[in-house]
Amino acid sequence: MVKVMATGTFDILHLGHIYFLKEAKKLGDTLAVVVATDSTVRKLKHEPVNPEKIRLDLIKELSVVDEAYLGQEEDMYEVVKEIKPDIIALGYDQVHDEKSVEKELKKRNINAKIVRLAEYEGGSDLEGTRKIIGKIISAYEIQKTIERIEGEHK
Amino acid sequence: MVKVMATGTFDILHLGHIYFLKEAKKLGDTLAVVVATDSTVRKLKHEPVNPEKIRLDLIKELSVVDEAYLGQEEDMYEVVKEIKPDIIALGYDQVHDEKSVEKELKKRNINAKIVRLAEYEGGSDLEGTRKIIGKIISAYEIQKTIERIEGEHK
Repeated sequence: MVKVMATGTFDILHLGHIYFLKEAKKLGDTLAVVVATDSTVRKLKHEPVNPEKIRLDLIKELSVVDEAYLGQEEDMYEVVKEIKPDIIALGYDQVHDEKSVEKELKKRNINAKIVRLAEYEGGSDLEGTRKIIGKIISAYEIQKTIERIEGEHK
Repeated sequence: MVKVMATGTFDILHLGHIYFLKEAKKLGDTLAVVVATDSTVRKLKHEPVNPEKIRLDLIKELSVVDEAYLGQEEDMYEVVKEIKPDIIALGYDQVHDEKSVEKELKKRNINAKIVRLAEYEGGSDLEGTRKIIGKIISAYEIQKTIERIEGEHK
């Protein structure tokens, strides 16, 4: 049994996430997913839309996911020790550097292979959380403009 | 084998959807989900954020879902004939009226029981798609205000 580990924020689920998790699972037999805590997301990206508990609970509902964990803040390798993966799959755009991750793993006697996955070439223009957020904001701006024009003609 | 059918828009997945689908599945053994087409969503609610194909593809990824279909526009009962459910589960806030649905089913010799589900009493304030959208728009407005204030002090 080859255990694969994948990590991410998974705020507002989209098909890019599904692609990433399916590609990761293809590398082995079972997939353990680590969901980043809110404080980690704030440090790396932005304020999450959905809190960590909700992001974790949703990830658990995907059939591709066998186990799901919340990340650890002090030392991100603590959760790796708990999961004991054979392979750690990195998304094509995830910031972690393969070489330094490998070094940190070795230091801790964790014997996992790092695999960088290919980019998602989905046909849709709506894969990314940012694109979903962008679409919501555009719709909101259009609505405000319509309301302003209607207000001017009252 | 008791087959349950549930329908919805499922634009931006959240725990309220999961609760609804799990409660529906508890009524039987397998769950068939009908995802509303974009034109149906436009008629009943608003412009969907995610197009029908993406909403359908995401619903298929949930472990609680056994089968997923896109709704039919001309006659919503066509897809019911195809699915042949024993039970049709209605969400607590879904507009369909039990009595009129039962009448329409009888007319078409479809022998399915209608069950209205209870409301989701989730502890979070983020269950609904509207709440997620609201949170995104608030964050956007705050950001714009910050940018304006920073601009004034340049």
